[in-house]
Amino acid sequence: MGDVTAALPTGTRDVLPVEAAELGEIEGALCDAFASFGYRRVATPALELAGVLDRAQEGGLGAAYRLFDERGRVLALRPDLTVPAARLIATRMADHPGPVRVSYVASAFRPPTPGRAEAAEQRLAGVELVGADGPAADAEAIAVLAAGLGATGLSGFRVGLGSVELTGAVLGALALSEEAEARLRAALRARDHVTWREAASAAGVGGDAARVLAALPGMRGGAEVLEWVSAAVPDAAPAAERLRHTLELLDRHGGRDAVVIDLGVMRDWPYYSGVVIEAYAPDVGAPVAMGGRYDGLAARFGRPRPAVGVAIALEALHRGLAAQRADAEGLHDGVVLVGGMDDAVEAARATREAGIPVVALPRGSEEAEALAAAERWRFVARPDGAGYAVHDVARDERFTCQRLAEGLASRAA
Amino acid sequence: MGDVTAALPTGTRDVLPVEAAELGEIEGALCDAFASFGYRRVATPALELAGVLDRAQEGGLGAAYRLFDERGRVLALRPDLTVPAARLIATRMADHPGPVRVSYVASAFRPPTPGRAEAAEQRLAGVELVGADGPAADAEAIAVLAAGLGATGLSGFRVGLGSVELTGAVLGALALSEEAEARLRAALRARDHVTWREAASAAGVGGDAARVLAALPGMRGGAEVLEWVSAAVPDAAPAAERLRHTLELLDRHGGRDAVVIDLGVMRDWPYYSGVVIEAYAPDVGAPVAMGGRYDGLAARFGRPRPAVGVAIALEALHRGLAAQRADAEGLHDGVVLVGGMDDAVEAARATREAGIPVVALPRGSEEAEALAAAERWRFVARPDGAGYAVHDVARDERFTCQRLAEGLASRAA
Repeated sequence: MGDVTAALPTGTRDVLPVEAAELGEIEGALCDAFASFGYRRVATPALELAGVLDRAQEGGLGAAYRLFDERGRVLALRPDLTVPAARLIATRMADHPGPVRVSYVASAFRPPTPGRAEAAEQRLAGVELVGADGPAADAEAIAVLAAGLGATGLSGFRVGLGSVELTGAVLGALALSEEAEARLRAALRARDHVTWREAASAAGVGGDAARVLAALPGMRGGAEVLEWVSAAVPDAAPAAERLRHTLELLDRHGGRDAVVIDLGVMRDWPYYSGVVIEAYAPDVGAPVAMGGRYDGLAARFGRPRPAVGVAIALEALHRGLAAQRADAEGLHDGVVLVGGMDDAVEAARATREAGIPVVALPRGSEEAEALAAAERWRFVARPDGAGYAVHDVARDERFTCQRLAEGLASRAA
Repeated sequence: MGDVTAALPTGTRDVLPVEAAELGEIEGALCDAFASFGYRRVATPALELAGVLDRAQEGGLGAAYRLFDERGRVLALRPDLTVPAARLIATRMADHPGPVRVSYVASAFRPPTPGRAEAAEQRLAGVELVGADGPAADAEAIAVLAAGLGATGLSGFRVGLGSVELTGAVLGALALSEEAEARLRAALRARDHVTWREAASAAGVGGDAARVLAALPGMRGGAEVLEWVSAAVPDAAPAAERLRHTLELLDRHGGRDAVVIDLGVMRDWPYYSGVVIEAYAPDVGAPVAMGGRYDGLAARFGRPRPAVGVAIALEALHRGLAAQRADAEGLHDGVVLVGGMDDAVEAARATREAGIPVVALPRGSEEAEALAAAERWRFVARPDGAGYAVHDVARDERFTCQRLAEGLASRAA
């Protein structure tokens, strides 16, 4: 029976206390970083009308959980948060003088590809900057991302920047057949460099442009990468110059060290139109953040404005942080109080009011030590005469005190 | 086009910045209150297997959003959070020595009844105390609720306590026909006192018990209500004594003043087995919180343990707080900085690092005052010679400073 009752939908999972607390801290740190740039929190419904989301992009909504409402309309669980945010800003904030800066922390839902270990529900924290264009806006979005990741304590992360505009200019300059171009784009989306090189050499172009084409998805580095592309493919120069200017601004924002040009970055949402962004943490296979510029999206909701945004994948970020943390999990400065549910309710109350969590047990409970060990509370206390006998697990010391709140506060600090 | 693109599913809505920030503060205050009692955060997936949720209660899952997964299994968007929490605790925390204390903040989903203005998505913050029975556990759950509501700043709220056990004892003692009992229970669930009195007088019982029966759903007050029921219906005395003892413990927890016995409280989930809880705020029609004891639920997931829990409805609570707040919304201590996206990136960065949010605009922007007014930022700043010209909207004063961070910090405090 255990297996059956524990069953969950493919790609979903429960989050237990230690991880849930850590995810909560990560969310708090990200929200503070977003707020320091003036991004204001919004929320949209988890369910949207599929027809409205369909309208947001070429080719429609794509894979999503769909269901019918009471009137037979198709609803969808939002598969991303950028489209709902764009819808909200274009409709509910159409009168905002702009630029509009909003943030969100919420779940997006996509049915996992059969046979692949993909998450059905992904918790994302992100920002959208709508109504601002140019390298300054791109740089701000990337700086917010770097500030957010830094605020969580993550070290060694890398933010890769590609450009849909630059890639498009290189492909356009080569006058490829439609078939060759489609094959190259598919390989780039899949980050399949082998297929890319085969398709590039089969495309029948020569010279510098052909060398750029073959090398494109593997090109990583600083401004020198952009200079090489500009020299070889002059049509790509404006897009390269824009990325170069973005790097320059990031230097002044203080987020430059983590940023690398990576022309292999190409997000798989068709709404991206300029810079595309992916962040990676050491020892995490999936990106911890992704985003980019999507200037055409707002117009589809009736209020054209340029826009750029990034979203941080909280569980991937948590894995990155977990890999960097020392194994020893600390004890929590709280007390398991025998009798706190009945004989010592007042002492429990006074201790909570002094800022120390109290986990109450009934009088005579013999589970206190087991509970403290299971949940990693630092103190165990029992009524003892007119006062309390306390075990400080962290120091493995025992002491008594008259008033529990004062006795613990002096040590917990 | 505006109307069409803005369309949302029935019963859903967008949450705009001011409300979203206030909801975030409410969530934070509640989580802190829950943590002070040792409740630890968990999270469960929004989608569950419908068959698993069905098993949790007599009569199955009831109204819910359902859809099919890739294998043809029926999934459901969780219509409440108590059943998923009970599933998680019974399966993933089966080895916990207990009592288990968990909290959550998440959305529950129910299709609105056609023609009624019900929310399809309800954000709830709640606690579950599993593995503890008796008045002490009931009182703790109610004390956590009162502490949480108090921590948000809500005043004048009332926590009503009913008892499924007590109501059942009264109905049982009267030896009613099955039909009469079903009619009375339906009236109680609907809080339809008129139908209740009709059904009670048609039930064909006399004496004290009949008077209690007719009056039951309107009985509100303190311990005297319980004494009256016990005297008239001796079979109800144990349930009444338990409630009385709970009130006594609440007196010591400090949450007694807000609590009232209200035998008309009867939650519409069939899993409740003892105390049932509803909290109301002035000027809010719907309950701001609800919960109760559900001792039979964990056994359905293979690990029998007694349990009690409460959930706070965040949007109803927000309405209650909004009704109590003075109309004037304060200004935020942040600055709209012209040139903060390009010429003054470094000053923006230094000001953020000093703890003051900076909303950056491009050089020469003429939208600064409009943006500050729309988003209620206190300061507007522009580069001026070697320093900055600042408008302090709160005091309607203008001043200049060499370093923006220092110039603002001295005033923002």
